[in-house]
Amino acid sequence: MDNVLVGIMMGSDSDLEIMSEAAKALEKMGVGYEINIMSAHRTPEAVMEYAKTARARGLKAIIAGAGLAAHLPGVIAALTTLPVIGVPIKSAALNGVDALYSIVQMPPGVPVATVAINGALNAGLLAARIVGAYCENTAQKLELYKNDMGDSVRAKNEKLQQIGYAAYADELKNKK
Amino acid sequence: MDNVLVGIMMGSDSDLEIMSEAAKALEKMGVGYEINIMSAHRTPEAVMEYAKTARARGLKAIIAGAGLAAHLPGVIAALTTLPVIGVPIKSAALNGVDALYSIVQMPPGVPVATVAINGALNAGLLAARIVGAYCENTAQKLELYKNDMGDSVRAKNEKLQQIGYAAYADELKNKK
Amino acid sequence: MDNVLVGIMMGSDSDLEIMSEAAKALEKMGVGYEINIMSAHRTPEAVMEYAKTARARGLKAIIAGAGLAAHLPGVIAALTTLPVIGVPIKSAALNGVDALYSIVQMPPGVPVATVAINGALNAGLLAARIVGAYCENTAQKLELYKNDMGDSVRAKNEKLQQIGYAAYADELKNKK
Amino acid sequence: MDNVLVGIMMGSDSDLEIMSEAAKALEKMGVGYEINIMSAHRTPEAVMEYAKTARARGLKAIIAGAGLAAHLPGVIAALTTLPVIGVPIKSAALNGVDALYSIVQMPPGVPVATVAINGALNAGLLAARIVGAYCENTAQKLELYKNDMGDSVRAKNEKLQQIGYAAYADELKNKK
Amino acid sequence: MDNVLVGIMMGSDSDLEIMSEAAKALEKMGVGYEINIMSAHRTPEAVMEYAKTARARGLKAIIAGAGLAAHLPGVIAALTTLPVIGVPIKSAALNGVDALYSIVQMPPGVPVATVAINGALNAGLLAARIVGAYCENTAQKLELYKNDMGDSVRAKNEKLQQIGYAAYADELKNKK
Amino acid sequence: MDNVLVGIMMGSDSDLEIMSEAAKALEKMGVGYEINIMSAHRTPEAVMEYAKTARARGLKAIIAGAGLAAHLPGVIAALTTLPVIGVPIKSAALNGVDALYSIVQMPPGVPVATVAINGALNAGLLAARIVGAYCENTAQKLELYKNDMGDSVRAKNEKLQQIGYAAYADELKNKK
Amino acid sequence: MDNVLVGIMMGSDSDLEIMSEAAKALEKMGVGYEINIMSAHRTPEAVMEYAKTARARGLKAIIAGAGLAAHLPGVIAALTTLPVIGVPIKSAALNGVDALYSIVQMPPGVPVATVAINGALNAGLLAARIVGAYCENTAQKLELYKNDMGDSVRAKNEKLQQIGYAAYADELKNKK
Amino acid sequence: MDNVLVGIMMGSDSDLEIMSEAAKALEKMGVGYEINIMSAHRTPEAVMEYAKTARARGLKAIIAGAGLAAHLPGVIAALTTLPVIGVPIKSAALNGVDALYSIVQMPPGVPVATVAINGALNAGLLAARIVGAYCENTAQKLELYKNDMGDSVRAKNEKLQQIGYAAYADELKNKK
Repeated sequence: MDNVLVGIMMGSDSDLEIMSEAAKALEKMGVGYEINIMSAHRTPEAVMEYAKTARARGLKAIIAGAGLAAHLPGVIAALTTLPVIGVPIKSAALNGVDALYSIVQMPPGVPVATVAINGALNAGLLAARIVGAYCENTAQKLELYKNDMGDSVRAKNEKLQQIGYAAYADELKNKK
Repeated sequence: MDNVLVGIMMGSDSDLEIMSEAAKALEKMGVGYEINIMSAHRTPEAVMEYAKTARARGLKAIIAGAGLAAHLPGVIAALTTLPVIGVPIKSAALNGVDALYSIVQMPPGVPVATVAINGALNAGLLAARIVGAYCENTAQKLELYKNDMGDSVRAKNEKLQQIGYAAYADELKNKK
Repeated sequence: MDNVLVGIMMGSDSDLEIMSEAAKALEKMGVGYEINIMSAHRTPEAVMEYAKTARARGLKAIIAGAGLAAHLPGVIAALTTLPVIGVPIKSAALNGVDALYSIVQMPPGVPVATVAINGALNAGLLAARIVGAYCENTAQKLELYKNDMGDSVRAKNEKLQQIGYAAYADELKNKK
Repeated sequence: MDNVLVGIMMGSDSDLEIMSEAAKALEKMGVGYEINIMSAHRTPEAVMEYAKTARARGLKAIIAGAGLAAHLPGVIAALTTLPVIGVPIKSAALNGVDALYSIVQMPPGVPVATVAINGALNAGLLAARIVGAYCENTAQKLELYKNDMGDSVRAKNEKLQQIGYAAYADELKNKK
Repeated sequence: MDNVLVGIMMGSDSDLEIMSEAAKALEKMGVGYEINIMSAHRTPEAVMEYAKTARARGLKAIIAGAGLAAHLPGVIAALTTLPVIGVPIKSAALNGVDALYSIVQMPPGVPVATVAINGALNAGLLAARIVGAYCENTAQKLELYKNDMGDSVRAKNEKLQQIGYAAYADELKNKK
Repeated sequence: MDNVLVGIMMGSDSDLEIMSEAAKALEKMGVGYEINIMSAHRTPEAVMEYAKTARARGLKAIIAGAGLAAHLPGVIAALTTLPVIGVPIKSAALNGVDALYSIVQMPPGVPVATVAINGALNAGLLAARIVGAYCENTAQKLELYKNDMGDSVRAKNEKLQQIGYAAYADELKNKK
Repeated sequence: MDNVLVGIMMGSDSDLEIMSEAAKALEKMGVGYEINIMSAHRTPEAVMEYAKTARARGLKAIIAGAGLAAHLPGVIAALTTLPVIGVPIKSAALNGVDALYSIVQMPPGVPVATVAINGALNAGLLAARIVGAYCENTAQKLELYKNDMGDSVRAKNEKLQQIGYAAYADELKNKK
Repeated sequence: MDNVLVGIMMGSDSDLEIMSEAAKALEKMGVGYEINIMSAHRTPEAVMEYAKTARARGLKAIIAGAGLAAHLPGVIAALTTLPVIGVPIKSAALNGVDALYSIVQMPPGVPVATVAINGALNAGLLAARIVGAYCENTAQKLELYKNDMGDSVRAKNEKLQQIGYAAYADELKNKK
């Protein structure tokens, strides 16, 4: 794998399915990463050690996903000067609003860059944008990704014009 | 002051006015306490040291108040086996719902005993109830307090019966 | 069973599946408990009798779970000086936010120690922490439990490092 | 005063200003009432006694106002078969949504007739409607009240047509 | 059927399953009722006619269920002096909070007695309580119903004591 | 005044200050309007008459503002085939979310074009856009208005570049 | 197809199933339309081009559906003077409240006519009402549609009176 | 001023007071910035031009503040591959929750790094962290800032220990 520039963290393996999207986004953008399960509440020393040494180990950003009273991103952000990206994970009762508030409403002095509920894909892309601000190669991949998204929308619209909304909607239903 | 049994913590002196109510409640119940400003995000090592040694220093409960993405109570609860009481502090935008969710929605394994938004008085009484579960003297003070509350309501009702709601309401307005 | 130190209460047997987690947590911590179905609205006298005699019968804490306009924990807290732990139960329409507000927003003078929505496991652990503040034996079990949680996270992370996120995520999916 | 048909209850004299509106509405409709301060949490026995004897003392409805984790209306409804009207009182942090949920989300079997947040005027009118369902005299007063409301709106509209919105808005500003 | 004292209304037959609970409650309390589908938005004249003549036809209360921007209860309450009971119906996106706010937040002068989201059973009982305030026979049935609820809770608790929570929970799971 | 093409309605003169913004926007766009106070709950017949005859009287759109359980826009929309624009008015407890839900969540078949809470200015502009879709003259005024908004932003930015954020912020403070 | 008067837009084909309802409503009202997939974030230039030329191409209204941080309706409204109708699409975490706020809370000067969450049918009808304000033919179809809705409700009520609520509810269950 | 590395954007000068905090944070961290008022809805072309050329002009991050249906950050993020930081601005009715949802809930592919409501200070620090990930000089300033925050908390705690909570609280009150 390339040089490790981004650390992906999650508090529990129940967040792994969601957080994998961050890893996949970074792979697609060609940005090296590492991925760890560490908990602000269950392995606080491991988190502290990780956060404090992250910069020296060459990381440029840390992505942390957490649900419920989601403390992991904020705890990490308190222990490093690297940009920390928080992913609120949706859980049973409050649909992730609890995690969103616990991550985005950080007090003055300790920012966490929050993305959408379950938005791990965007967290990966945001980390790539941070790298891409200084690395031309990554920036080009992000530009291509942006263009591909546009192409995909244009292709879908073309298809809609050709087969009409009824046939298109039927096709989508059959895919499910 | 009596033996220190309860630790009151807050992340910022902007919480002091609210959190003083916890101290006053403990004084009224005759329970010794200490009070500190320590921040989960700004002085994480101090919080860690405090939480890890709390039990050995004789504390029976810790009260922690915090606003916004309120991590202090949860961070402490992860580092001690003592009961930790969280007070969500109301702040400008979200009226304390952010702090409430950040405190009450703790993940399985690490409980925080949450009270109402700005409910520091009740946090103090809850700590006293914990002490009072094992200390007859404190339990008696809690019983008296409960009776006094009842007496106060009864006295207000008597007054209402005597002077009527209009005069009573006028009196309340004049007090403001 | 050991000495009964904790009372678990619920208003309806529809809360039993959730509230069983509190019982299991207390069993694991070696804390004796009793468990009852009593309703603030349907058997108010039974609740009153129970709450008023709880302390004399040797209880150190009461756990009460309730959904919707969840009055049970508050009603009990008004009738005893013991610490009362409230568990908001999730129900159909409002996802437990109704129960959370009905439990946590208690007025000054009558605290309820509120845990997360459906957080009965944490309610059990919180009751054990209250007992453990005064009982070394329980405190040691809580300490072990805390260490076990850390070990479990560390083992999961080791596995993640060995098999990678894709294989791990597949394994989790297959378990469902 | 007329025969006492409605009981107005509140848990604290801080609710008196709002709850006075219920009394005034009943006076206007010529329905006899009594008004009391009794607390579900601070004087539970008084509430129990009051609710259990209400029907025998000739009451036809009970109005109960409460804020925060507002248990008073539900506790009363559990102890009588009379219709109970709940008034959620707005308080500092949650704007009365806590009280609204604590009152309206009553479990099956124990209904509380909930009105708007701080809607004590409507609570009084609702109690009068209950009386008016069986009492022609009260029904006529309600009918007149309804007509007066219509007349008042019509008069305002006439004035708006005469002086225009700008002059009307100025006049309203000056009144403040 | 007995004398028709209560009118049950709903805006759409999609509300029928929920609103049937109101009919069943009234049947159990021996209170005569009629049930109609009429829409504030689709058949406004029918609603107007119904509401204006309800009192003269002998009704003592009207129950109206509606979802989304639930106008039916308020529109009826504007056209009669009878007590109107509103049932917010849960729908897809907002879980019934939209209907709850649309019903409970009525402006001063036009009260609607609001029950819980999907709380049609309680709406039926509330209508019976209104009738029962003036009819001894209905009041006795309400009293019996209240006692039966208590007996049911007591029986469940007895069973819990006999077979323990694990066996009880298993039994509940098997019933599903 | 020009030909009356838009009707502005409100349920109470307490909404007049907000709703005046709609009138001013229409004046600026040169669209004739009429303005009335009529209440869905207090003068339902007047509302019914108004809505049913609106089209025949030449109106092209109706703007209706209402707070709390805001029924006015929906009631009008049920009685006309004209486009109806709803303005949720902010009130004391729920900040206008109650009115927003009561207006925007209309059931299938009866649309209300909802604007922002207290968004009467935009309601006026939206009515003008409806007129402008068929009237070139109005469309040109809307185009000019759009350009003016852009010019205003550009002028502010120019000023910011010239005097800097500190001086600009000071100036804004002094204006308050 | 008839003259194209309405443009239906959506940001992703995942919105197609919902947005088809708008197309069907316009077909029923005999209003010509076109339907496109264009994204404010992925094909911003296409959206800009579309919005800027819409009026010149003869459109009278644009319907735009979007979920999450739903920018499409507002972005279009900023670039045309035509009336723009926004449909908030429900998505996984926040049930469409995110989209609702992102669409309805437009700043002063740029109105979006917002309908209910997933309310594409009403969006189509609203566009038809805009056309119908100026086109007698469409207005007549809207009037017929309104009458049909009333007939449908009346037929359902008749059936309810004939077979009773129990049989009716059974029939509905069987249909599912 | 230093090399311009960060662009601060806002849609209206009413956001200037809040957004100034971002500028001050960047000044303190020694990071060059530019600040502009441009509106996604009122000057969309200026925004488009700005976003598309930002990278080529040497920017490393863009901070965008917006209130209500806050589209500015998302619109910029769609037009650049640089990291975009969104600041939800609190406004009158919904306390900034509308802006928060409009910014944080971006669809997959277009991330916005969201900070707290009115959290412009943290937005500035987050931009500095992004720069600091690649620039040792900025990283050192961030480290110092972190240490200063810790020192400030420690100093406050020392003072609390010396003068006690009552004197401290009095002092805070006098400062207001």
